[in-house]
Amino acid sequence: MPISKDQAREVLRRLTQWGTVDELAKRLEPISEEARPLAPGVPRPGDWSGEARDLRVAALEAQGISIPHLAGREREADPASLRGNIEHYIGMTQVPTGLIGPLRVNGVHAHGDYMVPLATTEGALVASYHRGARLASRAGGISALVTTEQVQRAPGFVFANIAEASHFAAWAIDHFERFREVAATRTSHGRLLDLLAHVEANHVYLIFAYHTGDASGQNMTTFCTAAICEEILATSPVQPRSWFLEANMSGDKKATVLSFLHTRGRHVMAEVTLPRKLVVRGLHTTPERIAEYWAMSFVGGAQSGSIGVSGHIANGLAAVFLACGQDVACVSEASVGVTRLERTENGDLYCGLTLPNLIVGTVGGGTRLPTQRESLRILHCEGSEDGKELAAKFAEICAALALAGEISIVAALCAGHFSRAHEDLGRPQGG
Amino acid sequence: MPISKDQAREVLRRLTQWGTVDELAKRLEPISEEARPLAPGVPRPGDWSGEARDLRVAALEAQGISIPHLAGREREADPASLRGNIEHYIGMTQVPTGLIGPLRVNGVHAHGDYMVPLATTEGALVASYHRGARLASRAGGISALVTTEQVQRAPGFVFANIAEASHFAAWAIDHFERFREVAATRTSHGRLLDLLAHVEANHVYLIFAYHTGDASGQNMTTFCTAAICEEILATSPVQPRSWFLEANMSGDKKATVLSFLHTRGRHVMAEVTLPRKLVVRGLHTTPERIAEYWAMSFVGGAQSGSIGVSGHIANGLAAVFLACGQDVACVSEASVGVTRLERTENGDLYCGLTLPNLIVGTVGGGTRLPTQRESLRILHCEGSEDGKELAAKFAEICAALALAGEISIVAALCAGHFSRAHEDLGRPQGG
Amino acid sequence: MPISKDQAREVLRRLTQWGTVDELAKRLEPISEEARPLAPGVPRPGDWSGEARDLRVAALEAQGISIPHLAGREREADPASLRGNIEHYIGMTQVPTGLIGPLRVNGVHAHGDYMVPLATTEGALVASYHRGARLASRAGGISALVTTEQVQRAPGFVFANIAEASHFAAWAIDHFERFREVAATRTSHGRLLDLLAHVEANHVYLIFAYHTGDASGQNMTTFCTAAICEEILATSPVQPRSWFLEANMSGDKKATVLSFLHTRGRHVMAEVTLPRKLVVRGLHTTPERIAEYWAMSFVGGAQSGSIGVSGHIANGLAAVFLACGQDVACVSEASVGVTRLERTENGDLYCGLTLPNLIVGTVGGGTRLPTQRESLRILHCEGSEDGKELAAKFAEICAALALAGEISIVAALCAGHFSRAHEDLGRPQGG
Amino acid sequence: MPISKDQAREVLRRLTQWGTVDELAKRLEPISEEARPLAPGVPRPGDWSGEARDLRVAALEAQGISIPHLAGREREADPASLRGNIEHYIGMTQVPTGLIGPLRVNGVHAHGDYMVPLATTEGALVASYHRGARLASRAGGISALVTTEQVQRAPGFVFANIAEASHFAAWAIDHFERFREVAATRTSHGRLLDLLAHVEANHVYLIFAYHTGDASGQNMTTFCTAAICEEILATSPVQPRSWFLEANMSGDKKATVLSFLHTRGRHVMAEVTLPRKLVVRGLHTTPERIAEYWAMSFVGGAQSGSIGVSGHIANGLAAVFLACGQDVACVSEASVGVTRLERTENGDLYCGLTLPNLIVGTVGGGTRLPTQRESLRILHCEGSEDGKELAAKFAEICAALALAGEISIVAALCAGHFSRAHEDLGRPQGG
Repeated sequence: MPISKDQAREVLRRLTQWGTVDELAKRLEPISEEARPLAPGVPRPGDWSGEARDLRVAALEAQGISIPHLAGREREADPASLRGNIEHYIGMTQVPTGLIGPLRVNGVHAHGDYMVPLATTEGALVASYHRGARLASRAGGISALVTTEQVQRAPGFVFANIAEASHFAAWAIDHFERFREVAATRTSHGRLLDLLAHVEANHVYLIFAYHTGDASGQNMTTFCTAAICEEILATSPVQPRSWFLEANMSGDKKATVLSFLHTRGRHVMAEVTLPRKLVVRGLHTTPERIAEYWAMSFVGGAQSGSIGVSGHIANGLAAVFLACGQDVACVSEASVGVTRLERTENGDLYCGLTLPNLIVGTVGGGTRLPTQRESLRILHCEGSEDGKELAAKFAEICAALALAGEISIVAALCAGHFSRAHEDLGRPQGG
Repeated sequence: MPISKDQAREVLRRLTQWGTVDELAKRLEPISEEARPLAPGVPRPGDWSGEARDLRVAALEAQGISIPHLAGREREADPASLRGNIEHYIGMTQVPTGLIGPLRVNGVHAHGDYMVPLATTEGALVASYHRGARLASRAGGISALVTTEQVQRAPGFVFANIAEASHFAAWAIDHFERFREVAATRTSHGRLLDLLAHVEANHVYLIFAYHTGDASGQNMTTFCTAAICEEILATSPVQPRSWFLEANMSGDKKATVLSFLHTRGRHVMAEVTLPRKLVVRGLHTTPERIAEYWAMSFVGGAQSGSIGVSGHIANGLAAVFLACGQDVACVSEASVGVTRLERTENGDLYCGLTLPNLIVGTVGGGTRLPTQRESLRILHCEGSEDGKELAAKFAEICAALALAGEISIVAALCAGHFSRAHEDLGRPQGG
Repeated sequence: MPISKDQAREVLRRLTQWGTVDELAKRLEPISEEARPLAPGVPRPGDWSGEARDLRVAALEAQGISIPHLAGREREADPASLRGNIEHYIGMTQVPTGLIGPLRVNGVHAHGDYMVPLATTEGALVASYHRGARLASRAGGISALVTTEQVQRAPGFVFANIAEASHFAAWAIDHFERFREVAATRTSHGRLLDLLAHVEANHVYLIFAYHTGDASGQNMTTFCTAAICEEILATSPVQPRSWFLEANMSGDKKATVLSFLHTRGRHVMAEVTLPRKLVVRGLHTTPERIAEYWAMSFVGGAQSGSIGVSGHIANGLAAVFLACGQDVACVSEASVGVTRLERTENGDLYCGLTLPNLIVGTVGGGTRLPTQRESLRILHCEGSEDGKELAAKFAEICAALALAGEISIVAALCAGHFSRAHEDLGRPQGG
Repeated sequence: MPISKDQAREVLRRLTQWGTVDELAKRLEPISEEARPLAPGVPRPGDWSGEARDLRVAALEAQGISIPHLAGREREADPASLRGNIEHYIGMTQVPTGLIGPLRVNGVHAHGDYMVPLATTEGALVASYHRGARLASRAGGISALVTTEQVQRAPGFVFANIAEASHFAAWAIDHFERFREVAATRTSHGRLLDLLAHVEANHVYLIFAYHTGDASGQNMTTFCTAAICEEILATSPVQPRSWFLEANMSGDKKATVLSFLHTRGRHVMAEVTLPRKLVVRGLHTTPERIAEYWAMSFVGGAQSGSIGVSGHIANGLAAVFLACGQDVACVSEASVGVTRLERTENGDLYCGLTLPNLIVGTVGGGTRLPTQRESLRILHCEGSEDGKELAAKFAEICAALALAGEISIVAALCAGHFSRAHEDLGRPQGG
């Protein structure tokens, strides 16, 4: 998250709105079951019957959350209402959706015990994340924190030579304030945050970074950047021979080191310290063995030439993205992260996760659709509300979820029952 | 796709089942509309009404493909039938699904004009892929070819020192045939293809590669590798101090250079040459401008530190994966590829795409579910059939689809209407 | 080279010291042999005799450049004078050094026809770079331009949790001005330019970037950062549990995408357009074939998972670094770059090179040593002079040299005499 | 080091030439000072006088190693004798050379206590490596082991379409034996080991891997591959439209993930376990603090997008390469590696290093030159001897050296005297 000094000030302002460092740290602290009992768990976790399903739906309803579309009690949407989400509509692909939790999240924006809806077709996934969530919650919950927030669009400009290219790049960065004004004419929810320039011989890539409010922001950044490019062409002292609205340095829909380093979407972190006792009893392994596994798997991941190193983050993110109307193609970028597991001095297990590319939103795109709205409602992240940053809240829940999944899979590998879990749950009818 | 000599022989055998090089090349050749008229297109592409939807469903039915679940005419599935796909079931997330096509594919396994179902919540995606598909089809269609096929699982072993680690690695590779026999006791559809060893000081990573038949294979490789590890522990002349069934060098659920180089899933390629005339009239740009864009965006992608370099492959793959019951978390790995666009000597546009990590299957996992089966049926890729390689067929269609999308987005960027398309189609009610 | 707005202003200031864009472009323009005859070439290029050697030394002397140490006419240095460069001294490793040129460089700082000394033990290297240099010079010379300049040091700080870590990172960036003052107490030649923070769970990496004047700067950045860390520990509102002066995010002595993107040392570019006629007659190939090669080799490099994509930049840089007293271990980072070769609209060949990590200096380290000083003298880059940026001048020559080498090797591969050249020159006695 | 089954057999054969696993492990075991006293250290390490230098030279002579050229007692070489190493010769660049040691190496090929010559211009480097070497030697020495050995050349072939490209790739791998025969006609020292094919749309990269004996092998692989390409063009059932002898997938002169994974040069490992007592007394830190540093710096390196993760390997390798006539441009690839430091169960410090790309040779290139021969002589690695693998021996020493340097720098960072060491030794006259 190398960030400019302006952005640092913004992060600092956001973090200190909770008071001093100590007060921020306090808000993120674990809350024991003694201090606040855990919310009730998903009813009948090992039961595939319709009755068990109804009990789960009822449990949500008891909390004031109704999910008629998910539960199949509503009629199909009017195709005309789908404009903006689909073309050439033929019907609805139906993806089974399960619930995990409670997942206690101690975040700045997300603060409480959450049931998390996961849409997937892969057996064992929900059960695995559920196990991690339960365990982390019993340890006081997962702290989560969003720091930087930005989405990029990166037009490219071709010049006659390096002299013109370099001059243009420096000129453009120096005219940042003007571009910020231009962007402001195209959006009220977003704003231009930063501008980076990359010069490769006579080619210049300008990387515009925007805050996109509660929207994931790919369209907003496109429209604003188009307007800025018009301004550039009208006012630049040196004219490009040719230019393109996107020249493949925005990181859109792909894992890149550039996005990993600079944040694309939200940079969000999660952590929990699992007491040794819980690791031994709940996960059937030890902090030492998990630390040994972490070193081997982290080196393994680095050796394989991955970007960031983690376990199976993509699984949980794909499932919650799908349930909640996020753009699942963004899993390619969002699933990049760093998982760190280490034995603490006094023998417990520290678990930390950093997701620098979490592209999410609670308005726009798929969040408008009926079942997707309901899943956001389950998380208390539906739409946009003044004074609340629901997209940041959703991001904190996503990070906590992902960390729960990392804990669960690593424990399964360390305890030696990774293969068995998939034999039990990954085949139809438990067959 | 660096492959062993054994695998080369298998690829060669598969490729030459079509006869000589010339006969293979013949099967992949473009087929002009004159030689074989294009199948009818999706009815009423610009119409969001329920009536238009019904016409599309009817058009499929006219071809003998019924999609009652997609079309919302069937009741919800019995929750009990979802065992193996989900736990803690609460209902179905519904994802709008649209149709593109025809997409003419000239592959070894996929050979014909296809309608392709895409499930997405992102406006403009279906329209964009449709445009690319139509144009490529008018140029005679997209050639597609699967070469290598393998899925990995990578256990890790910790030894006392480098002497033992190296000895073990060499011993293991030398006992490949024995491991192949062990694997054969756990699966009838798959088989162990290859074994690589990576030694890092006193740590050894063994990378087992399997052919997994028409299944995507993550579970199969887990079970077989677990059995092999038992055999290793029972027979190795040197015992590990510790071991793990997966040590993060399989590439599962993440983009890695290792998988990019070695194939994970299927290595599949697609290509089409667009006549200059078609580029100018159909895409409103020129081969020269597209070639200029390719150079700039390829260098841009390489500079951003991506793995492989391409446009927005993740969009199309996520949508067809979702519709067809594939594991969408695999988009993180499957969307890695190389797109190459170049002006040919006589002024046309060559478009080539390589996807070295296409993890797909037509049996198991989400392919069992009702709407997902229907989407596979639309592609004539449902289940498994003796003598047919339906997963390879599906892979060829995926690659052709992805290339159609690359052509469409690049053309939009070159012709300058990328932003406009999203303004028209990416907002609700065209508002 | 994503740079902050402050740095952009500095780059702009430096670039505009030459006047308008047009005047800068003018200074970098090719200068034809008609407009200014090329300086005489290296005497007797194909002759290995002592006599030929003497003629070359005499030619330098005729220009007022004496090289008694290189020429073996001076006695060995007093071991005591080597303090600061070596410990446990036993003697001098002798590395054969050859001359290429003239290499016409049209840079901001380097502007003229240069003889370039290259120290190497690899036959054919000098001849190959000479060929490229001569050809580029006949095309009017190579334009070269330094843009950003910075060297990093990256301490790491361990905190109790993510709340403290994030707070610290934001606090640190916000106190940049204070750190700049602290750095100023430790150096008069350098200054702190920028600060980036990277937070990974409870770990914070601060990346301090310095302008290091005419020194390569690794020591200066170490000393200044040590002082800043003391200030941090004394004043930070939140104390790290542990900290380290360098935590492996500075890019020191290794190729990294981070340095590639952000500049480490100097970001310098070079370009030349070779007229078609010259390519055909001088290089025995065509712009079309070279463009075809570029596409294949660029994709090849990207596929191999390299950082940046180029040909054999390391060869020329290692040789000129060695001759001129640079730290040759830095070849690991300096040799990262992007080479781009393309056929222009009117059939000529555009050649561009970007080196974002060129760590060089003209004072300190090995530049103090006798033969190394002489080599810098040959380039008119010895030491430091008020009002001149000799390190930037040297960087421009290095980039021009590297581009000459890229042209030469690519041409050899395209014309099919790459293997032959090594058979002729890579074996002793031409045997 | 993913290797083919043939190569595994070769590695196994080489490793088992020492007998059983136990006997191999025995040969690599630490040898305590009690069991075999350490050879005497470099005389007067802290003394820069000429007298101290003479004592060091005399100490080597007492072991029967004369170094008249290094010591400045010989006249300059006849320029004519430099043919094959340089063109356009003007003189010798002189690089200060120091000695470290003894470095106890317990390798298969290198087995004993070595003085290691390092040529560098960077103050503190020799002292730092010396410190690490002494400490590791007191712990019983560094185990070292070469496993795979191969050097690549990667021609590229352009075809009309993917059908021809794929067919060609499979055909080529299937004709490996024939290519091996062709290679054998061009070299008696080397042999073709393996062949990988990479198909990207209509482009095919063939990666030929050779064992190159005691030579570093870049020229040998070029000549053999040129001959194989002629054979390919004469016999392939499908002809390329165009081809190039090297298409940038060999990894020559650059860091790539491909080489990291597949070995380029030699894959060599080194390890030592430092008793806790030695860490505390000799390095003024603890295994716990070093382990904490390792985790932070390894994650830091991975985050920076490096290939492999290590400390400052390039420093030691550049210095020993330069002293011993290796191609210093290869530092760009050779310095890629993985360093792992971990606290053992009983509180000691395990240190392991893997260098998968160590390109070295003891014949050819710079190894022919006078001072370079002398440095190889100091290591007992001069030239080639029947029944001895001197290049492998040299590789084991290089790996042990590099590990010594990793230990030293990490300890300096952990003990907090990294900055001070450079202030003392990195400036002239200790000033």
